[in-house]
Amino acid sequence: MGIIIKNTTVMTVDKDNRILENTNVYIEGNKIVHIGSEYEGFVMDTTIDGKYKLVMPGLINAHTHLGMSLFRNYADDMPLFDWLSKKIWPLEAKLNRKDIYWGSLLSMAEMIETGTTAFCDMYFLMEEVANGMAESGMRGVLTRGIIEEKNDPDKKLNESINLFRDYNNGLNGKIKVMLAPHAIYTNSPDFLRRISNLAKELDIGLHIHLSETKKEVEDSYNQYGKSPIKLSEELGLFENHTLAAHCVHIDDEDIKILLDNNVYPINNPGSNLKLASGFSPVDKMLKKGVKVSLGTDGASSNNNLNMFKEMNLAALINKAINLDALSVSARDAINMATINGAYALNWEDEIGSIEVGKKADLILVDISGSNYYPRHNIESQIAYSSNGKDVNTVIIDGEIIYKNKEFIKLDIERVKHMADLQIRDLIQR
Amino acid sequence: MGIIIKNTTVMTVDKDNRILENTNVYIEGNKIVHIGSEYEGFVMDTTIDGKYKLVMPGLINAHTHLGMSLFRNYADDMPLFDWLSKKIWPLEAKLNRKDIYWGSLLSMAEMIETGTTAFCDMYFLMEEVANGMAESGMRGVLTRGIIEEKNDPDKKLNESINLFRDYNNGLNGKIKVMLAPHAIYTNSPDFLRRISNLAKELDIGLHIHLSETKKEVEDSYNQYGKSPIKLSEELGLFENHTLAAHCVHIDDEDIKILLDNNVYPINNPGSNLKLASGFSPVDKMLKKGVKVSLGTDGASSNNNLNMFKEMNLAALINKAINLDALSVSARDAINMATINGAYALNWEDEIGSIEVGKKADLILVDISGSNYYPRHNIESQIAYSSNGKDVNTVIIDGEIIYKNKEFIKLDIERVKHMADLQIRDLIQR
Repeated sequence: MGIIIKNTTVMTVDKDNRILENTNVYIEGNKIVHIGSEYEGFVMDTTIDGKYKLVMPGLINAHTHLGMSLFRNYADDMPLFDWLSKKIWPLEAKLNRKDIYWGSLLSMAEMIETGTTAFCDMYFLMEEVANGMAESGMRGVLTRGIIEEKNDPDKKLNESINLFRDYNNGLNGKIKVMLAPHAIYTNSPDFLRRISNLAKELDIGLHIHLSETKKEVEDSYNQYGKSPIKLSEELGLFENHTLAAHCVHIDDEDIKILLDNNVYPINNPGSNLKLASGFSPVDKMLKKGVKVSLGTDGASSNNNLNMFKEMNLAALINKAINLDALSVSARDAINMATINGAYALNWEDEIGSIEVGKKADLILVDISGSNYYPRHNIESQIAYSSNGKDVNTVIIDGEIIYKNKEFIKLDIERVKHMADLQIRDLIQR
Repeated sequence: MGIIIKNTTVMTVDKDNRILENTNVYIEGNKIVHIGSEYEGFVMDTTIDGKYKLVMPGLINAHTHLGMSLFRNYADDMPLFDWLSKKIWPLEAKLNRKDIYWGSLLSMAEMIETGTTAFCDMYFLMEEVANGMAESGMRGVLTRGIIEEKNDPDKKLNESINLFRDYNNGLNGKIKVMLAPHAIYTNSPDFLRRISNLAKELDIGLHIHLSETKKEVEDSYNQYGKSPIKLSEELGLFENHTLAAHCVHIDDEDIKILLDNNVYPINNPGSNLKLASGFSPVDKMLKKGVKVSLGTDGASSNNNLNMFKEMNLAALINKAINLDALSVSARDAINMATINGAYALNWEDEIGSIEVGKKADLILVDISGSNYYPRHNIESQIAYSSNGKDVNTVIIDGEIIYKNKEFIKLDIERVKHMADLQIRDLIQR
């Protein structure tokens, strides 16, 4: 299959951060094979008119809980603990395979509509997320969240191992599997060490929540005399490729540990605001060379899965926290949502930028709207003035899965309807 | 003209904050005449299908500088003073009537597309904004920003008086005129008193920037020994109806003054973040009964004129500042963007809620998208999950000016093109 995107503008997000105007993008199979005016011997099946559109790398949602979209707007404006203990946990305990399938598919639909092409999900019954990926066409990292169960500590490890054996590298290489110790406060140090050793054995990465709330950090100091990040380092977790979600309440020593160990912190600005978790020192991390990426967290604590919004929030919030209008520039925010996300997912060789030889995971943003006028600076437009709903076309692994704002693969009406039925059934169950 | 919006959901934002399901809204002339199942003697011209749509009051952008959309994305990621002195002010000094006309019209287009029906604008050559209003169909308060000129102190006062005489209550009552002393640091106390007395004479309100930056407040203490708000009170400004834009760096005494004097603070979360101004204590003000409303500020410091985004930002940011997930609820944010904005514009008798007898300034939000699923709570959906680009239809003063995402009155392609031409010409001029 050969796709040409004609007469378009390309934001490469490559090393030179090039913006190419009036050019064409050639896709063959699942790869970008050429960017420019002519390409010899190219067999074309599909032409996409790229005029008044921007081709940019598909956004990467590096931390989410897809199944939780069922709880979106179910119980907002409540104290965090009441929200979790009275509303979310009782329902989560009853979630079945169909719930996860339709909830995850609803999340994928929203992500596709708003330009996300890859994600890292932490939840459970992950086979259903994989089934959803087959349906939606998305790329992603599947991680089964592990909360230690004293009665049966092996259960979730075995589920993770099976997930890895059955799904890693599946769907034409669109699935990666990693291990997901939920947090340091839901797993004992010994068990965390066991998970870490298993990751080494399988040669896969780790996905963990770290230093999300002030309480988590205070508890860690009380129990272990050190920060969650210091503890994780000492337990050897960071000897694996590690995605560390949140990293809100961290100090300079923590940042040094993240940097020295090539840990990938994932900033979730929408969720951190909504849950009143606080502000992550993103600007400081970026300046020190830490590759911070972005995530939405689950749709019940955001309440969107719109990465354009997270990009905008990251660019805005850090300025006010630091009282410095130069904190987190437009380019920083774009990098966080694209190439840094690819690093986090251990996928930077294949996705995260528009370059010849990389996988064709890209989006076309309709930049003809009034919010993109006047025509000054495309990076500023994307970081400060864009809107996820301006996404017009989405290509993942060379496949057009969304075109002119219509789903090609997904039956979106069915997805919305079924997700709604499932949560209604779940509440009654 | 009679318009029926059929089979719809209505968010009234009235005293009882009612959500009405499966109902109809009847519009006759420029007023809402009935909400419910039947209306005797109603002559119908137009039927709008309201299924899967939410009818809510048009949003009110209570503080903006419309002409500045020409500078959107012109110079981002710069230190504030460099941005103003090297980029914005040199261009502003050269702005002509055509610039203001097309820049303001571009702003109005974006506001309409994202559900804003009324605004309060502070800029200059305001007759061109009025011309734009005739073209776009919008409602608004026009205020000519007054920065004292020692050589010719009367010039801008006279412009304001002429604006009032020629335009107040114009366009079928859609225009109000107020006086706009720019700030306490750009006008002397004596001149501020003169403006205040003129407002009393004309019986119109005041629109002023107050306590936007830390520096402004520090300078005020150094120069006057008191806060900008205390100073304004003592000068008698608050004896007039007053819109106080920003109110970021304020203390409890300031809040008491705002409350005691029925001053209307306008929170501009996007701009305050982007310009690194800081965080306004919105939650505290709301809890004490101050009617805080919302604005976008100019598009060059935001960089949107999307009030759905401001609503969302207000609801999110205050939670993290106060480390309290209950700060600024969904309902608070909706009130700020609608009825509180109407109070700020001194227009609460006619707009800001969906009630029989009020002007028909309302919008239909398409709530069929994946971001509105599952179907839990419509207030949460609007404050946390909505997107300005979901606005489907806009009615102002009983006139349908935007329908099924198409402009009825405006030639939007011309507006975008002309705005772009003007700024290019301006840069060369």
